[in-house]
Amino acid sequence: MIAPTPAPPYYAVIFSSRRTDDDHDYAATAEAMVRLASQQTGFLGLESVRDADGNGITVSYWESEAAIAAWRQNAEHTQARQRGRAQWYAAFSVRVARVDRAYGTELDPPA
Amino acid sequence: MIAPTPAPPYYAVIFSSRRTDDDHDYAATAEAMVRLASQQTGFLGLESVRDADGNGITVSYWESEAAIAAWRQNAEHTQARQRGRAQWYAAFSVRVARVDRAYGTELDPPA
Repeated sequence: MIAPTPAPPYYAVIFSSRRTDDDHDYAATAEAMVRLASQQTGFLGLESVRDADGNGITVSYWESEAAIAAWRQNAEHTQARQRGRAQWYAAFSVRVARVDRAYGTELDPPA
Repeated sequence: MIAPTPAPPYYAVIFSSRRTDDDHDYAATAEAMVRLASQQTGFLGLESVRDADGNGITVSYWESEAAIAAWRQNAEHTQARQRGRAQWYAAFSVRVARVDRAYGTELDPPA
C-alpha cells in the first residue's frame, strides 16, 4: 500500500473524490488507469484508498512535472477523466505538489 | 470530504498508513487529533479515507511549513504519534509537499 518512493524531491498528484452510484465500467477503468500510469516514464508509485461511503484518495508520485503533464495528455487517460467527470465522480479535486520531505517505516530516513 | 482550500501555494502533509488490529483508543485519538489539528494556526483543511482492509490516506493542508512544524511540536500530537508508531500502525509514511496547482468541482479554477 505504501509506495516505495525514492528520496525527494519528486512530485505528487493528490486526487480526492466522492463517487456516484454509477458503477458502470468504473472498476475496470480504474484498474486499467493504474496499470497504464505505472507504465509511464517518470512514474514512481501510487497509493489509493476508497472507503465504504465512496470517498477516495489516490496519490500518484512522479519524477517531474513534465511526467505529470505527459500522463495528463495520454489519450486513454484523457477519455477516462472525461467519463469520470460525467459519470463516476460526484465531486473531485486534483492537487499537484512538490514533495520536499518524506519518511516512514518503508521509506529511507531523511538525509 | 473534499477540503475547500484557498488558491495555492500552500502545503500538504500526506500521511499513508496500514493499521494493526489494535483498536484500543484508536478511534477516539484519531478524532481528537483531527479536532486539535483544525484548531491550529495555519490549518486549511483535511481529507481522510480508510478502507475495510485498514489502509488509510489522510492529507492535511497548511498555510506554511512553519504551521506544519508547530503542529508537529504540539505535545498531544507528539504523544499520539508515539502511540501510533508503537501500537496502531503496522506501516506508515509521511510526505510534506508544496501544492502549486489545484482544481476540481469544489475548488476555484486555476488562475
